[in-house]
Amino acid sequence: MRFTIDKEQFLKGLLIASHGIGAKSVLPELLCFKLELTDAGLDIEASGSDLTIWTLVPSKINGTEIIRNAQPGATLISAHVLTEVIRKMDGKEISLEVIDNRIAKIEDGTASFKLNCISAGEYPDISNDKNGVALVMPCAELAKLCEQTAFAAFEKDTRPILTAINLSAQGGTLTAIATNSARLSRKEVSIDPSVRFVANVPAKSLVEVTRLFEGAEEVEIVVAPKKILFSFGTTLVSSRVFEDDYPVNGSIVPQSFNYFLSVNAAQFLNAIDRVSILSRDHGTVVKLSMDEDRVEVSSSGDQTGSGVERLAAVQYTGSRLDIAFNALFVTQAVKAVGSEDVTLCFTAEMKPFVVKNPNDESIVELITPMRTR
Amino acid sequence: MRFTIDKEQFLKGLLIASHGIGAKSVLPELLCFKLELTDAGLDIEASGSDLTIWTLVPSKINGTEIIRNAQPGATLISAHVLTEVIRKMDGKEISLEVIDNRIAKIEDGTASFKLNCISAGEYPDISNDKNGVALVMPCAELAKLCEQTAFAAFEKDTRPILTAINLSAQGGTLTAIATNSARLSRKEVSIDPSVRFVANVPAKSLVEVTRLFEGAEEVEIVVAPKKILFSFGTTLVSSRVFEDDYPVNGSIVPQSFNYFLSVNAAQFLNAIDRVSILSRDHGTVVKLSMDEDRVEVSSSGDQTGSGVERLAAVQYTGSRLDIAFNALFVTQAVKAVGSEDVTLCFTAEMKPFVVKNPNDESIVELITPMRTR
Repeated sequence: MRFTIDKEQFLKGLLIASHGIGAKSVLPELLCFKLELTDAGLDIEASGSDLTIWTLVPSKINGTEIIRNAQPGATLISAHVLTEVIRKMDGKEISLEVIDNRIAKIEDGTASFKLNCISAGEYPDISNDKNGVALVMPCAELAKLCEQTAFAAFEKDTRPILTAINLSAQGGTLTAIATNSARLSRKEVSIDPSVRFVANVPAKSLVEVTRLFEGAEEVEIVVAPKKILFSFGTTLVSSRVFEDDYPVNGSIVPQSFNYFLSVNAAQFLNAIDRVSILSRDHGTVVKLSMDEDRVEVSSSGDQTGSGVERLAAVQYTGSRLDIAFNALFVTQAVKAVGSEDVTLCFTAEMKPFVVKNPNDESIVELITPMRTR
Repeated sequence: MRFTIDKEQFLKGLLIASHGIGAKSVLPELLCFKLELTDAGLDIEASGSDLTIWTLVPSKINGTEIIRNAQPGATLISAHVLTEVIRKMDGKEISLEVIDNRIAKIEDGTASFKLNCISAGEYPDISNDKNGVALVMPCAELAKLCEQTAFAAFEKDTRPILTAINLSAQGGTLTAIATNSARLSRKEVSIDPSVRFVANVPAKSLVEVTRLFEGAEEVEIVVAPKKILFSFGTTLVSSRVFEDDYPVNGSIVPQSFNYFLSVNAAQFLNAIDRVSILSRDHGTVVKLSMDEDRVEVSSSGDQTGSGVERLAAVQYTGSRLDIAFNALFVTQAVKAVGSEDVTLCFTAEMKPFVVKNPNDESIVELITPMRTR
């Protein structure tokens, strides 16, 4: 294999693929990129425990030559070292030649590197077949769905299924649900009514995928047995899915409420942020005390003291109600609904409550209150 | 104690004093600021294992009232909590009142906090007497001295004395030396010839002090038994000193050399940075190969491969010489001498070599080469 390539395009491809490299792998091959040069361009493949990424640096972009002096072939090179070497080289063009299937000689006219290679035959054979149920949607819509739900999943858990986002397509609606069992996010998006699937995608995978969208307009989602694929631009990402049933569905969100608080989101978040300074010693519990005359946010800690703040720009409907909650959960929920004013709807003191965008019914955040001592 | 204070000035004082709080302390008092209100203003005191800081928020600045409604007194409040509370309060003015020596009530018109206090009598009595040998110098000069030497000390070591900067004033010169035994920095500054002292100041203390200079022009240094004081603006910092003798002096820097390399600093640093990607697996060793025709920087790693780069803008005087070195030590030394071109002077292959600024004899960096395998 031999080629001369535009440095910026090469680096861009390496940086996309590097999201596929797992932090730890016992197999040295899986710490490598698989580089494969064909007439179409340079294909870079990277595979970790959850994700596999294929991205193509095309031979030409809009008629401009990106790759020249091409002699097809394939090899494996340490992902970290190759990315760092290419990032730090100064030249506008870089030439790479694999010698004896063992050494990749990389030059830009100033610096010269000889990097150890592994034969491409050592790489696991990972299928990128796109056989399954397909759905095409705008990248921006999938990115928004991910941003509004992924945070609500567990990062790590004894119940791995709760680290997933439950995606279900049915009756013209794609519903995304994420929960850590103390809070839940649900987002709905209109889609082609003929598409029907269910997939539990690791929340981290979906976050990685949406980070790679840069510039792409549309993403094709393919739900296949044991995996889900995302195809956009010249990049294809495959993620494993959880095959267990997802433990909850959207119907646990209450439909009717007895108390309603409408509040300016920024003011509410600032007040929570300020008073929660004091409660760090027992998990950042903040209390909301509401009646028709005043709405207060307060918090306290054994070691530190107490803080209280009256909210100015509020509207409250209902009798007196005190609710304590995890400050982080409410903060993330208010940010996720993404509106200037948010509405909080309660049924009773110890029952889960809802955070809503008054102008967007597609997103709902559900939070379980905490007991105060 | 009671006062109403300008928020920005209060926060500024708290942030200065917070540099004096040690990361870990078993005494709850030492995790507190001591606040003491007098006619002059609000004195904030903080003390950790190496440093004690006193900073004054004056009652008036240029005729503008900073503190009003003052009722003198003193108390101890958690440094972390108080700083966070004041940082996050929105009001332009903040009032603080200590009730029953137990609770500090802090208000800005929107939020209201009650922070737990400790009686001021619990605070250790740390002297801020300025009895000793005094030297006044521009803050910028001490900051530069610190920047050019402190990095060469050990951060942590079994020989604590090597975490210090050795400051010695004698014969009109203040000499600063720092070493980790594999490299050494020496900086000289002209001073009043009548001043004579020696002090081994923890490098970290000096770095902290110079970070607090913001806006101050001159610093008074007072060397007293067992401590050194730095006084600037309305702030006084006391640091412990090491009483052991410093193990080296400036005379270990060689005076005559056999090989001279003059090189563009930026190009040299870039080349080291690039080739050292490959040698991370054995401590970032980089090799310099010099003869009259070419000067090359190279590096290699067992796992990764090798890299070599020819330096363009160089001038070399001497016969063929190969020197291997710790890439970090040379990088820091080249940055510390702070010139566009740097001169490296060698005596022999395995002997310590020197990095110099060709236009500034006051700073010298000495580095011990490494063996390559």
